[in-house]
Amino acid sequence: MKPLFISIEGLEGAGKTTQAAVLMNWLTERGVELVRTREPGGTPVAEAIRELVLATHEEEIDPIAELLLVFAARKQHVETLIKPSLAAGKWVLSDRFTDATYAYQGGGRMLAAELIQQLENTVLEGFQPDLTIWFDCDAEVGLSRASNRGALDRIEQEDMAFFNRCRDAYASRAEKQPQRFLRINANNDVDQVSRELIAALELHFA
Amino acid sequence: MKPLFISIEGLEGAGKTTQAAVLMNWLTERGVELVRTREPGGTPVAEAIRELVLATHEEEIDPIAELLLVFAARKQHVETLIKPSLAAGKWVLSDRFTDATYAYQGGGRMLAAELIQQLENTVLEGFQPDLTIWFDCDAEVGLSRASNRGALDRIEQEDMAFFNRCRDAYASRAEKQPQRFLRINANNDVDQVSRELIAALELHFA
Repeated sequence: MKPLFISIEGLEGAGKTTQAAVLMNWLTERGVELVRTREPGGTPVAEAIRELVLATHEEEIDPIAELLLVFAARKQHVETLIKPSLAAGKWVLSDRFTDATYAYQGGGRMLAAELIQQLENTVLEGFQPDLTIWFDCDAEVGLSRASNRGALDRIEQEDMAFFNRCRDAYASRAEKQPQRFLRINANNDVDQVSRELIAALELHFA
Repeated sequence: MKPLFISIEGLEGAGKTTQAAVLMNWLTERGVELVRTREPGGTPVAEAIRELVLATHEEEIDPIAELLLVFAARKQHVETLIKPSLAAGKWVLSDRFTDATYAYQGGGRMLAAELIQQLENTVLEGFQPDLTIWFDCDAEVGLSRASNRGALDRIEQEDMAFFNRCRDAYASRAEKQPQRFLRINANNDVDQVSRELIAALELHFA
């Protein structure tokens, strides 16, 4: 089987980190060699961009400047880590990818999806995950879990309406590309989400 | 007179810093209130992006990622500093602006001018300097001056062919928009360049 590029998506507090471990186990048990990475970030330069994007500055970051930073990090990530890993026969699992930009900068910051699409076409030329696992939880559920974890970053400090828009933007992406998206209900408790994830994987890779 | 946005352009070692002081003097003597700034940079967030772009990393920066970083810094600069200053009645003098992207990422790194143009249109929506003063010096002259100044940054470490392409890209920009560009021969010694600059300003603002 050709190596796959899998992204996992979802709001803060959706349980991505925990479920990513479940997913990794499931794949490595099946003999898959896997590179685990995240966005924004994944390479030293892209991680430096991540710090800039997530840090709280005295100055407001312009939404389009933020969008360009996110795509700069992504381009670096794709060319330096993701494509070379796939070419070397490894699978890649990324915590977030371009769908997160439609969710956060599109839904959250209300930038036009057409603007993001245009940039995506120019910068990535059609490169996207083979499979996206979306841990769908309500903004209230996610935020209450995330705030229990401690200090929030610049984006986590946005309000409930922001995260509701992010969630709806994810839903709209999933609706448009149903063959790429696996939706997992992430409002449930951890064990139930894991069970649902494994059931979905067994069906998908059957 | 409505406040103007002036950029100065040229290779490393073209004498921009020295001549910018001459230009500032000339303008302030005529009662102009002036904000001096630079690219990449000009605001705290944009300066942080500048550091990322100019630092030497263990990892190569992808040319398109570099292009996106430069435009992210520029968008932040335009929205946070340049436009508000102009709106407050101040002139703005920036050491470099979008023409430098056509020179360095276009000419130097050989990215297609169409790609830069597309990004410029999307991000800046036609915003450009009212006047661009181009200190045109040969790559050999500029580099030999710049290397006398000490340690070179990531971009200054490129080879002569790179800077020759940058210089030619500036020339092509100047040719396409002759009404915006004032070309000053910067191969001459400092005093002669200053005299030529002042003569050009007197003619332009006559």
